[in-house]
Amino acid sequence: MRYFEDVEVGVRLELGEHHVSRDEIVRFASEWDPQPFHTDDAMAAASVFGGLTASSCHTYSISSLIFSRNPKRMAVAALLGSELRFPFPVRVDDVLQLSDRCSEKRLSASRPGVGIVRSRTVLTNQREEETFVMDASYLVQCRAT
Amino acid sequence: MRYFEDVEVGVRLELGEHHVSRDEIVRFASEWDPQPFHTDDAMAAASVFGGLTASSCHTYSISSLIFSRNPKRMAVAALLGSELRFPFPVRVDDVLQLSDRCSEKRLSASRPGVGIVRSRTVLTNQREEETFVMDASYLVQCRAT
Repeated sequence: MRYFEDVEVGVRLELGEHHVSRDEIVRFASEWDPQPFHTDDAMAAASVFGGLTASSCHTYSISSLIFSRNPKRMAVAALLGSELRFPFPVRVDDVLQLSDRCSEKRLSASRPGVGIVRSRTVLTNQREEETFVMDASYLVQCRAT
Repeated sequence: MRYFEDVEVGVRLELGEHHVSRDEIVRFASEWDPQPFHTDDAMAAASVFGGLTASSCHTYSISSLIFSRNPKRMAVAALLGSELRFPFPVRVDDVLQLSDRCSEKRLSASRPGVGIVRSRTVLTNQREEETFVMDASYLVQCRAT
């Protein structure tokens, strides 16, 4: 785990990747976002996207999944605030890479043992398009002393 | 379905509700966001939240689920841009209500048969706390002529 002390401001870290299958897109959307451009090939082909795209909830969940699989992930105690954007859709067989870069960190003034980290997390596809951008502030644990 | 012509600027619409069970929180987080404060009761009790909270991906997915179940949902062709925030966490046995309010609409200048709608979608718990706020622009279908 990366604790507060390990987080380096300004350094981009690669957190891992995930291949997005057609089945995963359809399965996630069928449960949480059953709109035809996420679940039906023919309707998706006729949509403005011209093919199946992942629900944005699914895209966000993929970023969370890659993060949680990484043994070097930040020791997050809480998400304090965030802004999320989905500039490009995720498509069948995309390979998504997650990276993050800390822009700011400071110790908490009110709570011992934690710090506040601000970072940008980006999920990029194999065409170098950003499918997900999250600017967030986290409460991050310090190393036990 | 609410087509572009049906959308009224400034009117708040109630879209439905969803009860969040412990099992749903743990099941979603186990698959997409297996951090202990989302999956383990004891670790969650010791966390800054003092109890289990839903992953923010799950919270977003719940808003999508309520939306998709509503026969009067907007006829969305695409999500153009969005900003999401999660001011309060979702907890076990919360009953979440989804509402939205359109702030602006206009016909597309470049694409016949669709309009652009800007709206704020809010997921509120039984304590009147906002757990999810999404400011978004959508491409919305016009009625077939």
